[in-house]
Amino acid sequence: MIELNLENSTLEEAKEEDLNNLLEKIHTRKQGFYYTIDDDQVIEKINRFAKENSDFEHIVICGIGGSALGAICLQQSLGHLYMNKLHVLDNVDPVMIKELEEVIDYSKTLFIVITKSGGTIETLSQYNYFSNKIKENGYELSDHMVVITGPQQNPLRDEAEKEDLTIFDIPEDVGGRFSVLTVVGLLPAKLIGIDIEKLIKGAKEMRDVFLNPESKDNLPYQLAKTQFDLSQKGKVMNVLMPYSQKLVKFADWFRQLLAESVGKDGKGITPINSLGVTDQHSQLQLYNDGPNDKLYIFIEIKDLRPEITIDSPYKTTFGELMQIEKNATEASLTKSGRPNITILVDSVTEETLGQLFLLFEGATAFLGELMGINAFDQPGVELSKNLTKKALLK
Amino acid sequence: MIELNLENSTLEEAKEEDLNNLLEKIHTRKQGFYYTIDDDQVIEKINRFAKENSDFEHIVICGIGGSALGAICLQQSLGHLYMNKLHVLDNVDPVMIKELEEVIDYSKTLFIVITKSGGTIETLSQYNYFSNKIKENGYELSDHMVVITGPQQNPLRDEAEKEDLTIFDIPEDVGGRFSVLTVVGLLPAKLIGIDIEKLIKGAKEMRDVFLNPESKDNLPYQLAKTQFDLSQKGKVMNVLMPYSQKLVKFADWFRQLLAESVGKDGKGITPINSLGVTDQHSQLQLYNDGPNDKLYIFIEIKDLRPEITIDSPYKTTFGELMQIEKNATEASLTKSGRPNITILVDSVTEETLGQLFLLFEGATAFLGELMGINAFDQPGVELSKNLTKKALLK
Repeated sequence: MIELNLENSTLEEAKEEDLNNLLEKIHTRKQGFYYTIDDDQVIEKINRFAKENSDFEHIVICGIGGSALGAICLQQSLGHLYMNKLHVLDNVDPVMIKELEEVIDYSKTLFIVITKSGGTIETLSQYNYFSNKIKENGYELSDHMVVITGPQQNPLRDEAEKEDLTIFDIPEDVGGRFSVLTVVGLLPAKLIGIDIEKLIKGAKEMRDVFLNPESKDNLPYQLAKTQFDLSQKGKVMNVLMPYSQKLVKFADWFRQLLAESVGKDGKGITPINSLGVTDQHSQLQLYNDGPNDKLYIFIEIKDLRPEITIDSPYKTTFGELMQIEKNATEASLTKSGRPNITILVDSVTEETLGQLFLLFEGATAFLGELMGINAFDQPGVELSKNLTKKALLK
Repeated sequence: MIELNLENSTLEEAKEEDLNNLLEKIHTRKQGFYYTIDDDQVIEKINRFAKENSDFEHIVICGIGGSALGAICLQQSLGHLYMNKLHVLDNVDPVMIKELEEVIDYSKTLFIVITKSGGTIETLSQYNYFSNKIKENGYELSDHMVVITGPQQNPLRDEAEKEDLTIFDIPEDVGGRFSVLTVVGLLPAKLIGIDIEKLIKGAKEMRDVFLNPESKDNLPYQLAKTQFDLSQKGKVMNVLMPYSQKLVKFADWFRQLLAESVGKDGKGITPINSLGVTDQHSQLQLYNDGPNDKLYIFIEIKDLRPEITIDSPYKTTFGELMQIEKNATEASLTKSGRPNITILVDSVTEETLGQLFLLFEGATAFLGELMGINAFDQPGVELSKNLTKKALLK
């Protein structure tokens, strides 16, 4: 199980607390991220679909934000770094579409269209474009496209029903940024060979920790309390810095989770994605010597495999070098009075990644309550969306 | 030529200023980033080398920080999005090395080892590992490896001379984060088919603007002055948000430039990489409705090609949709009182990218002087480096 080391947080040790009150507040929000993982039927449906659709060479996701970041993170964390099977179209730049078309073959490509509301303009536009293309190329749409959307009737669902496409439902009570362990993340994961049962297993383990009312045993609470207390002391940014190339996109997933959940009512903590050791040569100068306005959250992998030896200039392995550099960076930040904490993970696997997702999702739920914010809405994006629609109708 | 729109900066119009004094201060720093672009001999040497080495299927860069970010940005901005030729090893995670080895064939791979000091531990470790591997596989090291390093004698140069490798010199007076338009960025660029003469042409155009003592015509100064004035008013973060998939890594390059240059002596502006329209669905909630502590720097591409039509739900093109969304986001931020500025670029080409590099490098030089900081050193990373060395010697 994941561990949390708070000794360099610069905070006094938190007194033990009964979390029943906070957990009760969270339950009142009626969010499904910590119980929809018990739904075995969706796993079965995903496994069946994957078995029947194992021949595709390319998988293209049409989706943005919470419909994209989970899959990107899963692929990067658990897939081969040079895997070229899953393409996530999380933008509408025409050059991205053109160059994608130059590398895929429609006959061997499956499109997964994901939008919970069923009305996301970017995704519907991609749906429109690629469904036409599939048909123009002479293929049956229902053989090459599947839809993941909310359970209510909506524009995408209407289209999908008309076209007789396979439809997967996103649970009503799970928002986009909490949806990685629903079909939104699990279907793409399964299609690129990830063991989704183990992902869920890890998530359930951390869910139990999240629901533990003893504060000393509740890692999501401890993380949230550290984030909150330090934000009150001027640490207005959270830098997530995994020392693991595989977890580089986990930091991107975290960015949405934190920014959209607690960035409201003029409050908020700004998330910053970082990567060890890479960003030691890009951001560490600022971290060590710039304004002291950040909390640093390291993720340390205890067992960095495979063992690859370096003979010179120092006799060690690349894994040990990475570890040593993490320790040095941690020590230098601590010496400069910069609060930092470490999440310790044995190795990057399906199970530990499932734990990590629930650790941060649970922490975000606690953080919302500590800050007095509804962590599950996003009122601040409506104006931009409405202005876009208005301009499109002109 | 690039334009700068400052109308939503929330600042009063700056009065015209004579910049001779500031430019004089910058000249006193004796930095080469704005005049080493006049060195035609290095271009010739690069072109000759590229001609003689055009058969490699894979190019691997061993380098980190300023030795990596320029090449990554050039590849992403000007190469095909699915190009699989250039691999930048900007980390020491063993899994990254293992999985790279699974996709390259040593017989068809050229390694470029880049470190200005010649003593960067990460890069020397990679040099050691891959030079052994090339030999073990029975190839001549000098046929498969080239070195880019500072002109002084140093550990990497010693090795390279012993092994009879081709060596390219990094100019003494150009630091890593300003080195993209030296051989550090230009050699990889040339090897993946980028027109480096046009890059340099664009850079020279913006250099002339940078050296213009009339403040109203000096774009780098106007950018720096906006960053500085707003930082004094609590906008302690700069979000760089290009509306262009190709420029996603330009924001990473910018992160190092800003963080290392002015993040010191307890001062600094924290750079944040962002991407339109993607991050509207991840960060915009925070940007619009969270703390008002950021300056937003958009990059808008006037001509987003190719023209790809969407029929439904709105009749438009993907390029127009992107433009409309940028305008909507800009308007919503402005309405929320969030200062934002826009850099207008005709299209992403070698020439405009050259202009963009010099725009930000020049702005950073001005920013250092405005903040009273030496923008060209990085004292804050020494402790971490020393602790690493100490641990390795144990």
